[in-house]
Amino acid sequence: MFTVLLSGGSGKRLWPLSNDLRSKQYIKLLPYEYDSGVRCSMVQRVWAQLSDAGMTSSSVICASSGQLEMIHSQLGNVPIAIEPDRRDTFPAIALSCAYLVDAMGAKENDVVCIMPVDPFVESSYYQSIKEIDDVLQESSADIALLGAKPTYPSEKYGYIVPGTHYQGYFSVEKFLEKPQLEIAQDLINQGAFWNCGVFCFRIKILIEKLLHYGLALNYEELYANYDKLPKISFDYEVLEKTTNIVVVPYEGVWKDLGTWNTLTEEMVGYTFGKAHISNACKNTHVINELNIPIVTLGVNDMVVVASFDGILVADKRESSNIKDVIQDIKERPMYEERRWGTIKTLDCSERPNATTLTKKVTIFAGMSSSYHYHELYDEIWAVLRGKAELIIDGDHRQMEEGSSIQISKGQKHAVKAIEEFEYIEIHLGETSGEVDMNRITFDWQEIASLGK
Amino acid sequence: MFTVLLSGGSGKRLWPLSNDLRSKQYIKLLPYEYDSGVRCSMVQRVWAQLSDAGMTSSSVICASSGQLEMIHSQLGNVPIAIEPDRRDTFPAIALSCAYLVDAMGAKENDVVCIMPVDPFVESSYYQSIKEIDDVLQESSADIALLGAKPTYPSEKYGYIVPGTHYQGYFSVEKFLEKPQLEIAQDLINQGAFWNCGVFCFRIKILIEKLLHYGLALNYEELYANYDKLPKISFDYEVLEKTTNIVVVPYEGVWKDLGTWNTLTEEMVGYTFGKAHISNACKNTHVINELNIPIVTLGVNDMVVVASFDGILVADKRESSNIKDVIQDIKERPMYEERRWGTIKTLDCSERPNATTLTKKVTIFAGMSSSYHYHELYDEIWAVLRGKAELIIDGDHRQMEEGSSIQISKGQKHAVKAIEEFEYIEIHLGETSGEVDMNRITFDWQEIASLGK
Repeated sequence: MFTVLLSGGSGKRLWPLSNDLRSKQYIKLLPYEYDSGVRCSMVQRVWAQLSDAGMTSSSVICASSGQLEMIHSQLGNVPIAIEPDRRDTFPAIALSCAYLVDAMGAKENDVVCIMPVDPFVESSYYQSIKEIDDVLQESSADIALLGAKPTYPSEKYGYIVPGTHYQGYFSVEKFLEKPQLEIAQDLINQGAFWNCGVFCFRIKILIEKLLHYGLALNYEELYANYDKLPKISFDYEVLEKTTNIVVVPYEGVWKDLGTWNTLTEEMVGYTFGKAHISNACKNTHVINELNIPIVTLGVNDMVVVASFDGILVADKRESSNIKDVIQDIKERPMYEERRWGTIKTLDCSERPNATTLTKKVTIFAGMSSSYHYHELYDEIWAVLRGKAELIIDGDHRQMEEGSSIQISKGQKHAVKAIEEFEYIEIHLGETSGEVDMNRITFDWQEIASLGK
Repeated sequence: MFTVLLSGGSGKRLWPLSNDLRSKQYIKLLPYEYDSGVRCSMVQRVWAQLSDAGMTSSSVICASSGQLEMIHSQLGNVPIAIEPDRRDTFPAIALSCAYLVDAMGAKENDVVCIMPVDPFVESSYYQSIKEIDDVLQESSADIALLGAKPTYPSEKYGYIVPGTHYQGYFSVEKFLEKPQLEIAQDLINQGAFWNCGVFCFRIKILIEKLLHYGLALNYEELYANYDKLPKISFDYEVLEKTTNIVVVPYEGVWKDLGTWNTLTEEMVGYTFGKAHISNACKNTHVINELNIPIVTLGVNDMVVVASFDGILVADKRESSNIKDVIQDIKERPMYEERRWGTIKTLDCSERPNATTLTKKVTIFAGMSSSYHYHELYDEIWAVLRGKAELIIDGDHRQMEEGSSIQISKGQKHAVKAIEEFEYIEIHLGETSGEVDMNRITFDWQEIASLGK
């Protein structure tokens, strides 16, 4: 069995910890299942569970190119099917299955399991998924789903109503999306499941579907012709046109941690970062990525979240409505996580014709930048800690704590961290909001040989 | 009549907008009485009202040396009696009266009115104070107080119970501090007043008191011997030993804006700075000095305050208990207001043996620094906007938008802003939390003549 982990969008509902350069699935607030004291992200927790279940060697993550650096930073060098742009789940699943076939040896009769990258589940979830291979064989069904046992009548989830009960699975009678409270309670009384968003099927099903669009299940071809694929969900394109569907029950914990009230329920502790919660506060979580303290006094059922992008103060019950409020906020992302390190924007001074940015940059040990230059601005670097090799127009020099340099506009430069390297970087000149980055090469071997 | 404005301590109850380098009376959130749309500080509001009443030419502000720059920045070049250290109100009042005698021509039979620098009052307050001169004459009382008409049975204020009613004033029967609710209501029913903390008396009373300590009412002598004065309040040292006291009623608004719930009541609007309050929020104030947005969602009766020093999220009813929570916070002040401009600490990177500070400094047009040098660190300057003259070891140069310089440790330097001048300053070296500032002179004429 192969696995595709679908990594969704930017998750505005977890603002200010998610932004266009950091999706909610990468925020490190959760416990690892095997070590509840260590904080990890949703993606890290799922990947660790997948690894425990022995499934990572046949798994691929489907994500946008903007998420590449983050995934590599958190999981190492894992297989990724890269969406050229966002087009909904059917194109993403087709592209991922093509990756499995071309790069990982999957055959058309192999079963693939599509799952979200961010469910909060127990290890038995993966055991249930592994059983689906046999269930598809025994039942001769086209698609098998995973159904979680509901713990309360949620109005926000989709429900699967089961039909006949077989050994280890049920036939599917119907689906219901986001029912009202009383209907949800009725569904639970009838033995309905929550739809976990997990689909298992043989790869050949997709091959047939793609033929309709004149395309083959080939990664390079689909990548190049991605805009010819319809912006449609797998549910509409495949699931709704299939009659022979079964559901495999999963009895363990299943939660969608897509809002602050659900995420904080699973958080390690009540606080993250500098936080002082007074005794008069009940059920209040503080998540603080800033370097200044947060004090809460006499507040109940609240979540307070501060990052370089902004500060949220919300009643937990209201926290899912955040999208409406933040759509008016048009600020640049102030915190960026990259494969090679992080960038925090400390100050953004806007003048009529230019913007001066002051940033704190961290480069992980062994990581390097591209060889590049800027047309519009000089850079001033002041090193806070660590060691790095800096190459400017072919000239090599070592930078370390306390050293500083001015790199003029037009000067080609690259840096490689020998130890974890942290510095203040000031862009001085006609910096604008737009990127002024002219890359020559990423190859450090090639860069390092310059001027020698 | 002369006036002494007592400028109190650092006001921890308005954290995080007050710190050791910014007292609550300097926070600009209030309306001017004559222009309610313009934000001003408590001190600015009181000084403007005093000016309208024609009283500023006979007034002195009593403050610690740490407040000098802020007072000059907000009020211009006003008379200030400088406390060498904090010793309570009796020494402060004695020092201030000595200033009035030595520097402003007050005589021993002149009446002086002592008042706090931060009451929230209407202009009729000053009219009532002006009447006290005549009241002292008519009543032959030693001390006259101002009593505000209570509007509710506060448990936090002091009460003055009046005796006989004369034309324009009452004799004082007794004082009660912070009574319980029922007693407060009884007091109000009896016609008691709130004690405004205003004392009026003839200067000679203080001369007699100081004789007990072997001191004369002489500013230089008191300043030099300040540590010989007892750490005692004017209430204990003078008021409680005086029997002949009267109280003058004041019918207008009187509020002590010492906590966030009282201050926000008088604030101009519900928000200051970047704030997005959802429609589901009631009676919620957001005060934001940071450059990132604050979003509040579904919260009621709250105050959210963010500054470079920290973030407060408090139920308004609990906001007066902040002192207990923040006593554990031992962070350096990140925002400083000075006579010549402001300093914001953008980043404070601590290493085992050193701390690197990145600051954003603003110098007001025409203002200059001292001529000084640092023993432990180099400074890197990157100019964001404005123009300034920089003198390094006698060498003159002009700095402007986009220019940068490294000033080495030991190099004497001074700067004068030609236009308002803003720059990023990085301290690079063995900066510690302690000050490394070796001043040679403050005299710009002298500095400017160097090297010529």
